[in-house]
Amino acid sequence: MASYTAPVRDTAFVINELLGIEAHGALPGFSELSPELIETLVGEAGKFAAEVVAPLNHSGDQAGCVRDAEGSVTTPAGCRAAMDAFRAAGWGALSLPAAFGGQGLPHLLGFVVEEFLCSANQAFAMYPGLTNGAINALLVAASPELQRVYVPKMVSGAWLGTMNLTEPHCGTDLGLIRTKAVPQADGTYAITGTKIFISAGEHDLSENIVHLVLAKTPDAPAGSKGISLFVVPKFLPDGDGNPGARNAASCGALEHKMGIHGNATCVMNYDGATGWLVGEENRGLAAMFVMMNAARLGGGIQGLGQAEVAYQNGAAYARERRQGRALTGPAEPGEAADPLIVQPDVRRMLMEAKAFTEGMRALGLWVGLLVDLAEKESDEAKRAAASDLVGLLPPVVKGYGTDKGFDTAVAMQQIWGGHGYIVENGMEQFVRDARIAQIYEGANGVQAMDLVGRKLPAGGGRAIQAFFALVDGECAGVDAALAPVAEKLGKACGELKVATMWFMQNAMANPDNAGAGAYAYMHMTGIVALGLMWLRMAKVAQAALASGTGDAAFYQAKLVTARFFAERAMPQVGALRRQIEGGAEAMMALPAEAFGVA
Amino acid sequence: MASYTAPVRDTAFVINELLGIEAHGALPGFSELSPELIETLVGEAGKFAAEVVAPLNHSGDQAGCVRDAEGSVTTPAGCRAAMDAFRAAGWGALSLPAAFGGQGLPHLLGFVVEEFLCSANQAFAMYPGLTNGAINALLVAASPELQRVYVPKMVSGAWLGTMNLTEPHCGTDLGLIRTKAVPQADGTYAITGTKIFISAGEHDLSENIVHLVLAKTPDAPAGSKGISLFVVPKFLPDGDGNPGARNAASCGALEHKMGIHGNATCVMNYDGATGWLVGEENRGLAAMFVMMNAARLGGGIQGLGQAEVAYQNGAAYARERRQGRALTGPAEPGEAADPLIVQPDVRRMLMEAKAFTEGMRALGLWVGLLVDLAEKESDEAKRAAASDLVGLLPPVVKGYGTDKGFDTAVAMQQIWGGHGYIVENGMEQFVRDARIAQIYEGANGVQAMDLVGRKLPAGGGRAIQAFFALVDGECAGVDAALAPVAEKLGKACGELKVATMWFMQNAMANPDNAGAGAYAYMHMTGIVALGLMWLRMAKVAQAALASGTGDAAFYQAKLVTARFFAERAMPQVGALRRQIEGGAEAMMALPAEAFGVA
Repeated sequence: MASYTAPVRDTAFVINELLGIEAHGALPGFSELSPELIETLVGEAGKFAAEVVAPLNHSGDQAGCVRDAEGSVTTPAGCRAAMDAFRAAGWGALSLPAAFGGQGLPHLLGFVVEEFLCSANQAFAMYPGLTNGAINALLVAASPELQRVYVPKMVSGAWLGTMNLTEPHCGTDLGLIRTKAVPQADGTYAITGTKIFISAGEHDLSENIVHLVLAKTPDAPAGSKGISLFVVPKFLPDGDGNPGARNAASCGALEHKMGIHGNATCVMNYDGATGWLVGEENRGLAAMFVMMNAARLGGGIQGLGQAEVAYQNGAAYARERRQGRALTGPAEPGEAADPLIVQPDVRRMLMEAKAFTEGMRALGLWVGLLVDLAEKESDEAKRAAASDLVGLLPPVVKGYGTDKGFDTAVAMQQIWGGHGYIVENGMEQFVRDARIAQIYEGANGVQAMDLVGRKLPAGGGRAIQAFFALVDGECAGVDAALAPVAEKLGKACGELKVATMWFMQNAMANPDNAGAGAYAYMHMTGIVALGLMWLRMAKVAQAALASGTGDAAFYQAKLVTARFFAERAMPQVGALRRQIEGGAEAMMALPAEAFGVA
Repeated sequence: MASYTAPVRDTAFVINELLGIEAHGALPGFSELSPELIETLVGEAGKFAAEVVAPLNHSGDQAGCVRDAEGSVTTPAGCRAAMDAFRAAGWGALSLPAAFGGQGLPHLLGFVVEEFLCSANQAFAMYPGLTNGAINALLVAASPELQRVYVPKMVSGAWLGTMNLTEPHCGTDLGLIRTKAVPQADGTYAITGTKIFISAGEHDLSENIVHLVLAKTPDAPAGSKGISLFVVPKFLPDGDGNPGARNAASCGALEHKMGIHGNATCVMNYDGATGWLVGEENRGLAAMFVMMNAARLGGGIQGLGQAEVAYQNGAAYARERRQGRALTGPAEPGEAADPLIVQPDVRRMLMEAKAFTEGMRALGLWVGLLVDLAEKESDEAKRAAASDLVGLLPPVVKGYGTDKGFDTAVAMQQIWGGHGYIVENGMEQFVRDARIAQIYEGANGVQAMDLVGRKLPAGGGRAIQAFFALVDGECAGVDAALAPVAEKLGKACGELKVATMWFMQNAMANPDNAGAGAYAYMHMTGIVALGLMWLRMAKVAQAALASGTGDAAFYQAKLVTARFFAERAMPQVGALRRQIEGGAEAMMALPAEAFGVA
């Protein structure tokens, strides 16, 4: 049976030693974050996730959510109590603005909580996760009046939120949506339409549910330029701001899904429901994209979370299960067999998982810090530099992070052999749950197109050039011990530059050349970004070992893993560059009929 | 909702045009196989799979198998009738020996049936699939008397078979098994022990079930040298060879699994059950490996089968679903949106799937032909050459075939976006079902070690050298149109040679260097083997186009796909070679404790 312990030490290492958060004490919300406080906060968050939320993961998967004849949805046993505890502890409010009842702490601490919750129970983590996204959209686009009514309730967790984008005939292409919003005399809108795949659309975890809904007003322009965003509460707030009359927004059905069974994925019916416009008419997509950007970083963190818990259980099994002998001769001759971990191919999977989870944690928390710097840094040049990277990296964090998260869950299941395929052991649930993160919040192919089509050319390529400079700077002047790692990273970054240049030279003439290489480019960037994190971590570890303080084994493992990642992951970058250079010709040459059955 | 059509045209292309089966007419069983007869046979098999078996796939997944209080197991609705129809049509007997009631046709026709059945319904396909493996073991190792009693019943499908290897504490390491076989006065053995993960261990599809069981006699040597194989029928054959008294072999429980719900995966309890020794005492593993070798080829075919049905449904969705616009401007301006298939990243996934399924079909059926040549070819040199390749390729067919089969199922699910995650649409079942083939019949990491540790060095490396010569020969003297494809294949084969040499130079000093690179080597070999198939197919297509006969679009698609595979898959080979050259050092450097939670 799978278990979970939060990686507190590694997380504190990233925040305190790698990112050096104390040096940012001048930023609002950062001032009191001593290494000791970070360790306490991270430790408590980890304890909550492991002790309160994780025990509900397998049972929630088995029980799923249940909708009654009236459309009410009951979440799996224990979820209500866990949500109450979550609310009482204030974990959802950690990095939200103090003006609305949040604690105003750095975004990266919110990411830590998200990772831990997602490892513990992804289906559960999505309830506060979506609420967070909805809060962000309201903070950016809603009127002060709407913010005053909704945001404090959502920050406290009293009300939870949703995102309503998809309709039966359209997901990625939101220009096609049909849900109607008809202006009413009182300034509200009557919302009518059907939305599908609405995570947390209906449940018993909060006294109200705040739906953010994309819809079109009667005279809206066609396509994506005519989309507006509305807030549509399940219960209309009364004069005191408490849940009042029931709104005409209801759950028509629950979807049966491959995984995340503990999250209620709803078909939502809006039958002239009362909604309030968020921001301006026809500007809904922009507000929704604010939410999506945060959600994409969260998506990458989910990939990390699933990989981490799968890795822990893969490693535990490899250390305990005795089967066969080491290739170099019996490692434990007194026992009937050696533990699996002596097998190089098992090690390969474990080391790949270790290199991904620790590297991805560093990347995610670094981007979390950049989000704060982009918002709050007083030095304009530093703020702009952070802002460029925050503009560039979300599709990489989401696409690469969730792909590798899924791959890691699959590999860790593989270590368990046949036992990994058995439901009761929990490894197969990680695979089923991790799978969704590659699909939602913009399928990973859409992320790749966003990266290559929008992020890369933005500002004349300023962001990617800054990223290159960052990597090259980190590789320069490295001492002999880390030279092999820096050299491989520098070479991989060189491949990424060549691929970038190839797009500049070939995508103008034929945009399909960009599309054909986009996915490979997203993965190249992800590998180089993790390589950057590993070189930085190796430097920190080297310095710590030289100073003789702390746990030498921990820092030694960082050095070994940095080397492993350089040797194993970096070669892939060159192969991906060559795939990109293949271009679109063979890929697009066949007529659609050639994909019928022969 | 997913659907399936057997790829009859492509299969006939491989058998008739690529493998030129008519030229092998002198081999026993091949004489009447005109192209027309092949097309008829393949067409009928495809019809059966698509019309009788495929409709039970989704319902069988949802219903699963049910065990009653007495231990009887009921398969999902429709399976009994489908098995009766399968039996009546004789599909299981196609390539089995005429002496036992089979049709004596080539092995590759058995592979065709296996692919189609597996696409249609993997859980169902496993019932006859395992029977086939058990028949092979009996044919190789059992006494004529045992063969006479069991084989004809199994060839006709009246009795189905199983393989009983795994016990709760051991799977890969069979030397650890504890099931006991105590000799009885009448020459039989009393079998006592518990076996787990027994596919088709108990069901309602046949009048008897023939278990092949690994067990240890009381005085057996320790470890794998003391394992014997027994045949243990559910019902003891009476004097007339009909099912008689109930044997003490029963299903103690059904496993709850990630997928293949329609197959009854049993805990089997043997409580002094009557068994007959197959072959000699303590030689059971050798006989079981005969069965495993066939099962591994079957495993690769399963990967192909799952990839094929997933590909068909991914392609159909991409052609129908309208979402967004082509990057090069609206492809169908009169419609609200273009079909997904205009998107390069969707094409990428479809082309990769097409290149894998068609390439893997060619590889699987070629190896199927080699099995016949190794058994029946009268020219000794040709027979030996085929035998070498049959010795080398099974772990590649199994490991690479099932890995890519799973990856393809995942990619095709991705094309469906959120709808791919919904149970009713069937795409997620392909992913869950395909996953098992990477695990059973020897987990893929074990396949990789078998390839590098046993197959590669066997006979002084004769088989791999012969494979290299085959590839180089195919690449030599290619005309200008195919030169880019041949050049990339030749280069990839060069990388494989370098990796092979690296093992020779580095594995002796440290066997972990072989283990560390084994998985990468297995994939390199798989890619080169598929590249060989694609170059051959391209040549056949080129010749057909030059002669102006047949369906030009079909052959043009072969040329384009061959080029796509060369451009996209071949670059990976160099990256894998570089991973191998990283060796075992960083991989094995950390102590086991470093894989605990930090």
